[in-house]
Amino acid sequence: MRTPDELRTLVEAYLGELALTPELYGQADSVRYAIDSPGKRVRPVICLATAEAAGAEAEAALPAGAALELVHCFSLVHDDLPALDDDAERRGQPSTWAQYGEAVAVLAGDALLAEAFRLALSYPTSDVGRELGRATLGMIGGQYLDITGTAPDEATLHKLKTGCLFAASVGLALWVAGVPEADQRPWRAFGDELGLLFQIVDDILDGDGYVLSHGSGGARRLADEAAERAQARLAEVDADTSILSGIVDGLATRTA
Amino acid sequence: MRTPDELRTLVEAYLGELALTPELYGQADSVRYAIDSPGKRVRPVICLATAEAAGAEAEAALPAGAALELVHCFSLVHDDLPALDDDAERRGQPSTWAQYGEAVAVLAGDALLAEAFRLALSYPTSDVGRELGRATLGMIGGQYLDITGTAPDEATLHKLKTGCLFAASVGLALWVAGVPEADQRPWRAFGDELGLLFQIVDDILDGDGYVLSHGSGGARRLADEAAERAQARLAEVDADTSILSGIVDGLATRTA
Repeated sequence: MRTPDELRTLVEAYLGELALTPELYGQADSVRYAIDSPGKRVRPVICLATAEAAGAEAEAALPAGAALELVHCFSLVHDDLPALDDDAERRGQPSTWAQYGEAVAVLAGDALLAEAFRLALSYPTSDVGRELGRATLGMIGGQYLDITGTAPDEATLHKLKTGCLFAASVGLALWVAGVPEADQRPWRAFGDELGLLFQIVDDILDGDGYVLSHGSGGARRLADEAAERAQARLAEVDADTSILSGIVDGLATRTA
Repeated sequence: MRTPDELRTLVEAYLGELALTPELYGQADSVRYAIDSPGKRVRPVICLATAEAAGAEAEAALPAGAALELVHCFSLVHDDLPALDDDAERRGQPSTWAQYGEAVAVLAGDALLAEAFRLALSYPTSDVGRELGRATLGMIGGQYLDITGTAPDEATLHKLKTGCLFAASVGLALWVAGVPEADQRPWRAFGDELGLLFQIVDDILDGDGYVLSHGSGGARRLADEAAERAQARLAEVDADTSILSGIVDGLATRTA
């Protein structure tokens, strides 16, 4: 089983060589720009690690992992638009709209989403694409609740906005690895904990969100509890989940 | 076999009752608004008529036809945005961004695209979703060529921007009807003619595009030639294509 760093290297190489649809013509430049924006590639790494823990080759999960990353990229490109978060910078570089203009950035997000489905649909089973679709719709719903301030509660907001795609990082890997639906429950219980953990730590690093609502100490405690729950769920999975356990530790203690 | 009007009634009923993903929460309102915007539903009607001509129940093609319409709606919602065509009106009503604001309209387009894939993925075969993905990416490429004025030529522009989704209206129906790939060629040759026919007549009705480049008489002649080619391709299909032939006549002579 490969370490998270080794899996991330696999993901970076796959994304770097990913052939975009030729019919995109010049639109491909901005799509490539968004994909190449430096990122932690957390979702695909979780996907590959889950696939490997479930008995598949990590390589078999690369299209699914890349599809998750492209959906993540699509959401960032559209979130950064002036009409939404109005962020001209993303990870120290001009955001896609700042680099290519708003019109091309709208289309870049659209193309990233369509390319994500193209990748998810490269599998013989439709289940990979179906779960990606559900997760994407949940994420969009969460984004709506966020920008309109209409979320019924904090938990629902983050479960949708962040949690859906993290849960799908585990879920897609289960379909890739051919884990029967009846055996997926413990895996999915684990996946359901990841988004919240990621979100709280994100807020701790940015000093917003959970830090504002629960204080610095309160947010740290919530993050530790989420990490504990994730580890507990993982312990219920009948497989060697040591790499995934290390990823949970890494998510809980990350400093960037 | 049902008439185009009967098929359109089927499509309207299906779209009207279509259950959107509950996780969209309030975002669903703008998505529903965009779907309900009055339209000719040309693409789903072609899809249903093709499915029926190819020996399937028209009803079996409803999710595929609706997926095509949702992709069309998604493209209109994003095209209308201030950063793109800046159209505050669509078919006599406020466009989605004019009604709900730019941010929600960006998300509405995203959700329409994801819902389209959800529908396409409701079939046992992945081929429906795969072809929808290819067509969507081609359409986005065409939109890029259009807004940046970088199309290599008029034919390439329209083949992508309009043609891809029309061709897919036939293509998706072939997968739904279970037409083996080896037997799809004559059908697809027909589908490839439809987008151009639609586009030229659109330009004649709007007095732009082909009318500007070929004059009024020249555009009419090109439309008639495209209709003749579509009928000729249809004649090569070994099936009762009378309804499809009527649809071609309707596309060539439409006045709205």
